[in-house]
Amino acid sequence: MKLKLAERMENIKASEIRELLKLTEDPSIISFAGGLPSPELFPIEEISKIASETVLTEGKAALQYSTTEGYHLLREKIAKERIKGGFLKPEASKILITNGSQQALDFTGKLFISPGDIIFCESPTYLGAINAFNAYNPRFIELPMDDEGIIIEEFIAAIKKYPNAKFLYTIPDYQNPSGITLSIERRKEIARLSEFYELPIIEDSPYSELTFEGDMLPSIKSFDEGGYVIQLGSFSKTFCPGFRIGWIFAEDDILQKYILIKQGADLQSGTLDQRIIANYLKDYSLEKHILKLRETYRIRRDVMLDTMDTYFPKTVKYTHSKGGLFTWVELPSHIDTKVLLEEALQYKVAFVPGSSFFPTEKKNNFMRLNYSSMSEEKIRDGIIRLSQIISKYCEAAHTQEKKLIKV
Amino acid sequence: MKLKLAERMENIKASEIRELLKLTEDPSIISFAGGLPSPELFPIEEISKIASETVLTEGKAALQYSTTEGYHLLREKIAKERIKGGFLKPEASKILITNGSQQALDFTGKLFISPGDIIFCESPTYLGAINAFNAYNPRFIELPMDDEGIIIEEFIAAIKKYPNAKFLYTIPDYQNPSGITLSIERRKEIARLSEFYELPIIEDSPYSELTFEGDMLPSIKSFDEGGYVIQLGSFSKTFCPGFRIGWIFAEDDILQKYILIKQGADLQSGTLDQRIIANYLKDYSLEKHILKLRETYRIRRDVMLDTMDTYFPKTVKYTHSKGGLFTWVELPSHIDTKVLLEEALQYKVAFVPGSSFFPTEKKNNFMRLNYSSMSEEKIRDGIIRLSQIISKYCEAAHTQEKKLIKV
Repeated sequence: MKLKLAERMENIKASEIRELLKLTEDPSIISFAGGLPSPELFPIEEISKIASETVLTEGKAALQYSTTEGYHLLREKIAKERIKGGFLKPEASKILITNGSQQALDFTGKLFISPGDIIFCESPTYLGAINAFNAYNPRFIELPMDDEGIIIEEFIAAIKKYPNAKFLYTIPDYQNPSGITLSIERRKEIARLSEFYELPIIEDSPYSELTFEGDMLPSIKSFDEGGYVIQLGSFSKTFCPGFRIGWIFAEDDILQKYILIKQGADLQSGTLDQRIIANYLKDYSLEKHILKLRETYRIRRDVMLDTMDTYFPKTVKYTHSKGGLFTWVELPSHIDTKVLLEEALQYKVAFVPGSSFFPTEKKNNFMRLNYSSMSEEKIRDGIIRLSQIISKYCEAAHTQEKKLIKV
Repeated sequence: MKLKLAERMENIKASEIRELLKLTEDPSIISFAGGLPSPELFPIEEISKIASETVLTEGKAALQYSTTEGYHLLREKIAKERIKGGFLKPEASKILITNGSQQALDFTGKLFISPGDIIFCESPTYLGAINAFNAYNPRFIELPMDDEGIIIEEFIAAIKKYPNAKFLYTIPDYQNPSGITLSIERRKEIARLSEFYELPIIEDSPYSELTFEGDMLPSIKSFDEGGYVIQLGSFSKTFCPGFRIGWIFAEDDILQKYILIKQGADLQSGTLDQRIIANYLKDYSLEKHILKLRETYRIRRDVMLDTMDTYFPKTVKYTHSKGGLFTWVELPSHIDTKVLLEEALQYKVAFVPGSSFFPTEKKNNFMRLNYSSMSEEKIRDGIIRLSQIISKYCEAAHTQEKKLIKV
């Protein structure tokens, strides 16, 4: 069979996370690989009740086609209650419902990227965004981060070097994969630069409400005077990902374009899913649910970091995320975490090798660890198992280094 | 605000159907414009029960992320029970779950079309497919049809003229918008040509089970010996469109590419939606439900055609579809149905002007009428209203023609 595919298909590769998720269906494996919320916290009884009632009382509409923009009551709830981190009070008309944030990333690629176009992102950045954008053949320019996120001087230098760049993609809160949070000052500065250089900012905020220490930070969008900031939100991390419901919050001109794209891409998101969430938000407190998530995930993060403090070799560094789902581990530069993963799977423990999170300059000595989806006991067990393999590799690296020095 | 968008955005325009759907939310308008299934036939009580039980008993999985390919029990049910029209018994591994067929069309564009590539389609063809493919900047070549569908000689001539064409897009059963059905002989011939010329065939089959007279015809896919036929299916017309669940049925090499695209586009379709449908298929008979749809839609089609026979001017032609949701009306060539629509809306009746269904050579004297979504009484009323306007335009056209002849 000979297939003449579109040129872009050379750029579309399998995601290692998704392939790993398959491997880790084996329940004996302790997997830090996913980015899954904790299923035992899903409000199952409430959703069961709401689902049944929504179909019974709104069935003719809830099971029918509806508008591309999304269910108006859900858009209103999002505009009023979920756009936080600042003093924004947007109109519901600025919200488009998408199938999770992932679809918003695909649409962003479709909206902005012609083949060869430059886009800016953090280094490292979210693997799913790399996959989504790659379908449109961009050239990624990775911006270095420090503890406060993107280094502004580097961002300015990049804008000057690439004045035709299409956008900056950033995850300001508890970044995936690094766990780093962008400081308030830099948020303001990025919003200002966006207006000055007329550069769209894609602010991906799936974790912003999952804060463990202090209040949520104001979003970049809350400082957006030029109208170039496009914020992406999702119920996948604060409620349940199985609904595949997220949103795009953007100014009218931009949102209209996204709506046209949605129309051609899949007409609309699931009507019933949207109505179940809207009715849940009406009848129950998502705030309370999120408080429970914060508390649970904070404890799990602490267990993970404490165990790492105790068992990991001192040459290994890792981030202390103040929210979200991940910590990011840096091993000595000689260690390739893809090789390490193969051995880890034999020890029945999994993670995502860091190289997948670098769109251009692959670095091999990082790994991403998720702490949200399992019990404290499993986290402790898994980290101890992992520490044994890491220690072995660090020693080998150390020995090799010594040998190199001798030579 | 200055926006530097991707070049493809010049090609992405608002769909008239969706804009019209908004207009026709006014309940006093009798709208033949949509392609909606009849909501009073939705099995609301059964779905309410299933939805509640699915969340209660499978909640941890049903509300969580799941695999990109789709829920395995749903894929099995589709492979075993919904791939009809021939003697195909595919493996579940050849099925990918999508958000309705519309998403499958978008993915098809992404998979095959580089800017400027030739694709073949029927003339007229489905508006949503034109929208989906347009995002990838193809060049459409429209193939003429007669009462038995695509004229094979024209298809062969097109293949020879454009040997690098990427695929043929066809809706063989009760085509949208024309209502035409492709004959068995031509299905065989298209499958044979597909193998001989190594040309993929996109067989879009949302209406195939909605037959009013006799049995379903065998699908093109059922004659596919080369493996180049990709069949699209959907629960939107046979069950409920609000779930946004459809599928792609293709051979392994091709399906793997679609799965990669799905991964980057939105990770997966809604987990709960997939499980609700799978459980419905397990506990209830979709066959029985479809029998009810067939009977109801057949009666509505008859009322529409009978009323047209009685009230429409004799210069107006229309198709007698043997299934599906639409009839296709040809007015005298002087009449522009877009202009006619504006007046029709004042008479509180709506339809889709035919020009939207021609990707290149817009013809202005056609309209598409849907008969599935309203009572017989409304259909009669609406067609009588429409006949008054059409009669007026036909007389005006006739008078104008006479004048032209005089001159």
